[in-house]
Amino acid sequence: MSEDVLTYAMRPIGFVRSPYREASEIPKGPGAEHHAEGTIEVRPELEPGLQDIEGFSHLFVVWVFDRAGGAELVSDVPLDPGAPHGVFASRSPRRPNPIGLTVVELLGRDGPRLRVRGVDMLDGTPVLDIKPYLSGVAPENLRRGWVAAAERKRGSGPEVQRQSSSRR
Amino acid sequence: MSEDVLTYAMRPIGFVRSPYREASEIPKGPGAEHHAEGTIEVRPELEPGLQDIEGFSHLFVVWVFDRAGGAELVSDVPLDPGAPHGVFASRSPRRPNPIGLTVVELLGRDGPRLRVRGVDMLDGTPVLDIKPYLSGVAPENLRRGWVAAAERKRGSGPEVQRQSSSRR
Repeated sequence: MSEDVLTYAMRPIGFVRSPYREASEIPKGPGAEHHAEGTIEVRPELEPGLQDIEGFSHLFVVWVFDRAGGAELVSDVPLDPGAPHGVFASRSPRRPNPIGLTVVELLGRDGPRLRVRGVDMLDGTPVLDIKPYLSGVAPENLRRGWVAAAERKRGSGPEVQRQSSSRR
Repeated sequence: MSEDVLTYAMRPIGFVRSPYREASEIPKGPGAEHHAEGTIEVRPELEPGLQDIEGFSHLFVVWVFDRAGGAELVSDVPLDPGAPHGVFASRSPRRPNPIGLTVVELLGRDGPRLRVRGVDMLDGTPVLDIKPYLSGVAPENLRRGWVAAAERKRGSGPEVQRQSSSRR
């Protein structure tokens, strides 16, 4: 690799308003689903950048894990305790660059505020970018490695059942 | 908004090797498909973070538009010329934070190098993060705003036809 490794300074375009004040409140692990509603408050001077966003049902939100500890290259994750996985093969918050990525459903817009469903970020989380969600990979073409194996292993486990019943 | 707007320093975890040397070589606009193969070379000291990544068929790659011009909040895009859209409602490279997001198919791994298909980045592009692709939004639940409208408008246009025939 010949490139010098520079750093890039990223400035939040806005912040998330979410019902979660503590990481422990955010659903995690097997069967976790994110239906929580929240708001993305874009910095007022950037509001023109939201033009025509209302037409999209789903958005990618790129954000900062601003309250995560330092990076861990290999670690345990809630879905598969006792079997550590590499950070780039997991959604662990303790990443070399503490970047989070969430797909949210856009419910509505009020000026620089986007009402969204599916937040899994803490209240006050800095947002770096928003992009329209245009297409996905068809489920039949997807292999999900250790995640699928851990889900199968725990398919009838208590956490899945609890999650299922809490959805009703 | 009460939070101070700090900046976050992001250091590349690696670089993309791609066949594209110039932005003009990258397929864009209506019907553009990305089948190009390339390599993501992760910094050797971060290789442990790739543990178990081989099990995933698709990955999210978060990267830096390191050769894009400054941000434009509203601009024309190749798919819909003459009808400017907000930067957060488009994939324009000229973003407040020059962050790119690409879904690639993982073809294989050789130590710290990931062979992937679907690159749309320039050769040498800095990579900030890699995450496993776990699920997508079902097409029937997706609204794609001005993108769908522009595609319909140009549905029988020469560029779509050219793309279709090049796939055979």
